[in-house]
Amino acid sequence: MADIAPFHVMALLARARELEAAGRTVIHMEIGEPDFPTAEPIIAAGQRALLEGHTRYTAAAGLPALRQAIADQYQARYGVAISPRRILVTPGASGALQLATAILIDPGDRILLADPGYPCNRHFVRLVEGEAVGIPVGPETGYQLTAELVERHWDARTKAILLASPANPTGTVIPPDELAALIAAVEARGGRVIMDEIYHGLIYGAPVQTALAYSDQVLVINSFSKYYGMTGWRLGWLVAPDDCVGAAEKLAQNLFLAASTPAQHAALAAFGAEAQAISEARRHEFQARRDFLLPALRELGFHIPITPDGAFYLYADCGRFTDNSYEFALRLLEESGVAITPGIDFGHHLPNRHVRFAYTNAIPQLAEGVERLRRVL
Amino acid sequence: MADIAPFHVMALLARARELEAAGRTVIHMEIGEPDFPTAEPIIAAGQRALLEGHTRYTAAAGLPALRQAIADQYQARYGVAISPRRILVTPGASGALQLATAILIDPGDRILLADPGYPCNRHFVRLVEGEAVGIPVGPETGYQLTAELVERHWDARTKAILLASPANPTGTVIPPDELAALIAAVEARGGRVIMDEIYHGLIYGAPVQTALAYSDQVLVINSFSKYYGMTGWRLGWLVAPDDCVGAAEKLAQNLFLAASTPAQHAALAAFGAEAQAISEARRHEFQARRDFLLPALRELGFHIPITPDGAFYLYADCGRFTDNSYEFALRLLEESGVAITPGIDFGHHLPNRHVRFAYTNAIPQLAEGVERLRRVL
Repeated sequence: MADIAPFHVMALLARARELEAAGRTVIHMEIGEPDFPTAEPIIAAGQRALLEGHTRYTAAAGLPALRQAIADQYQARYGVAISPRRILVTPGASGALQLATAILIDPGDRILLADPGYPCNRHFVRLVEGEAVGIPVGPETGYQLTAELVERHWDARTKAILLASPANPTGTVIPPDELAALIAAVEARGGRVIMDEIYHGLIYGAPVQTALAYSDQVLVINSFSKYYGMTGWRLGWLVAPDDCVGAAEKLAQNLFLAASTPAQHAALAAFGAEAQAISEARRHEFQARRDFLLPALRELGFHIPITPDGAFYLYADCGRFTDNSYEFALRLLEESGVAITPGIDFGHHLPNRHVRFAYTNAIPQLAEGVERLRRVL
Repeated sequence: MADIAPFHVMALLARARELEAAGRTVIHMEIGEPDFPTAEPIIAAGQRALLEGHTRYTAAAGLPALRQAIADQYQARYGVAISPRRILVTPGASGALQLATAILIDPGDRILLADPGYPCNRHFVRLVEGEAVGIPVGPETGYQLTAELVERHWDARTKAILLASPANPTGTVIPPDELAALIAAVEARGGRVIMDEIYHGLIYGAPVQTALAYSDQVLVINSFSKYYGMTGWRLGWLVAPDDCVGAAEKLAQNLFLAASTPAQHAALAAFGAEAQAISEARRHEFQARRDFLLPALRELGFHIPITPDGAFYLYADCGRFTDNSYEFALRLLEESGVAITPGIDFGHHLPNRHVRFAYTNAIPQLAEGVERLRRVL
C-alpha cells in the first residue's frame, strides 16, 4: 500500500471546495472529465433499459450486442476487422487496464511506460507485484515512448510496454508510423504492448490509427467515458489477443462478475447517428477550446513546446514561475481561484516544473481563468 | 493466471443455452442472483437520476448522501453507530473485496477461509500474491470456521480470516456468540477479519448481528445486489477500520475512480419505506421457497444435514447418487433439463459429493424441477 500514491490534486480539490463554500468562485481547470452531460440519446436508452427491467447480470464479457457494436465500430472508423469474441466489456477502462496488467505481469516483471503519464497505470502494475519503469520523455519525442527508447531500456525482465495515445497529461498523439515501429520493436523482443486509446475519439486533425491495425497481439484499452461522455457510468472495454481471451474472461468473472447492465444497454445508443453527431460536435468544441487556451497560456509565460493533438489537456512547463509546481498550484488557487493539477500526479520526471491544464470548461470560463492568472503572474 | 479457476458452471450454463435454443425448457437452479427485477422505487430513482443528468464521476468513496444512508441503516437495523467516513461505496461487493484483500495482504501472507466457499474470494487473494488457505468445514460447524479452527490453523504467516454469513454455497449463518468468539480469536493474534455480509438481509428467523457490533477492526463487505435486488447495477460497499480508510480511498481512486453514479443515486431509494417493504416481501418469498425445496430434496435422497438460515442456496450431499458431482450435474441437465452447480466451483473439500441448488425461481418452477429430478433419480 505504501507504494500506491494518492492523487495529490485531491487535496487541492478539497481546498477548492472550501473556498467555494466560503463564497468564492473557482475556475476548475484540474478536472479530467468532459463538462458535457451524457448525450440525450444515450440517457434515453438508459432510461428505456431500466423501464424494461434490464437490471440483472450480463455475461462476464458483456452483452453480445454491445461487443458486436464495438467490433463494427473498429471496422467503420479504422477499417480493422475484430472478432467480437476478442472484445470484453469492462467496468470502465480501469477494469480493462486491470485485466491487461494482471494477465501479462508476474511478480518482478517490468513494464515500460512514459513518464509523465496517467498515474493509475503504474499502480495497476504494482498491485500484481510487477515493476512499472517510467521512462523520462519530453517534447523531443512528443512526450511519448519511441522504438529507440524501448530498445534502450528493454531488459530480460521486461515483458511489456504501455502506451497511451492521445496521452494524459500531455494530449499528444503517437504518429501512425512511430506506433507501428514501437509495436514491431516490442514484438521482436517477444513482448506485448498495452495500448490505451481512451481518448481516441478526441483528436484534432492529426492522423490516427488504432494499434489493432498493426498487430493482433496488442491489448487495447478503450472507454465510453471521454469521447462518448459516459464517465460516471463506468464502462470501458478490452480488445484482447486470441491467446489472452480465456484468461481475460475468467479473470473478469472473478474480479467484476460483469460490467453495469444499464450502462451497457445505454452504450448501445452511443454508436447511433444521433449520439455520434453530438460526440462530433463536442469534439469540435474541445478543439476550439484548445485553440483558445494554448496561445493564451503561452502568452502568460507557460512553455508549451508542442501543440497536442488530442484529449483535453495541456501540459505546461511552469519553470519560469516556480521550482515547486505543487506549491505553485496551491498559490494560484488561493490567489486567483484557478485550480490546476500539479505535475507530481503524473510521475517523477520534472514534476516540479510542470502543471496540467484541462480544458473541460467552456471558453468564457477558460478566458476568465486566463484573466485571473494574468493578474497574479 | 494458471491459479485462477474459471466458473465451471459456465460450461454447464452454455450447454443449458444450447438445449434451450433447441427447444427444451430448462429449470435454472444454478443461478446466484434473485429472479426479481430491481424494485420499482429504485428503478424510478435511477430514471430520475438520468433525467437530472447525474452521469459524471462521484468522489472515489461515493456520494456523501449514500454513505450517510448506509451508516443510518447500521444504526436502524443493528443499533451500531458507524461514521460515514468509514464507508466506501464500491463497484459491487467485488470492488470491496478487492480493496480489503489488497490492503491486508502482502505477498506470501496467508488468509484463512472456509472450504466450501465463494470461489472468487481466493482469487482476490491470489491476485495480490497472497495465499488463501481453505479450511475444510462440514455440517458439524455449520460449514463455517470456528474460533477453535482458527486457533488450530493460525501460523506466523497468517494475517487475516475471511468469513461469510450467510454463506455461499451453504446458506448458513454464524451465530452471534460464535462470531464474537471468532473475531476475538483473530484479534488476539493481531490479525484482521474480513466479513462478507452480502446476504445479510436474506435471513429466515435466525438471530443475526453485523460483525461491526463486536469490533471496529473488522472489514465488512456488503452489497445492494442480493437483498436489494440490484445485481446488474454493480454496487456494494466496504466498512473499513479507521486505520484502513486512507489506504482504501487511495486504492479506490486508482483501481475504480468511483462506483457507477446512476447506480448510487438509484440506491438511495433502496432504504425508503416502499423499497424496504418490497425487499421484505421478497425475503418472505425466499423463505417459503426454502421451506418447499429443502424437504423435497431430502425426500429425493439428497443429504442436507442442517437447515440453512439465509441466502438462497442449499448445499446438498449427492453421495448417494454419484462420486462425481460435475458429471452428475451434466447428466441431470441432459436427462431432466435441471441446471444445478457442481461442488467443484466452491473449493477442494469433498466437491465431488456436493451440488448447490439455488432457489432463485418461483415455487411452481422449483416443483417442476423436483418432479423432473424424481423421474431420473
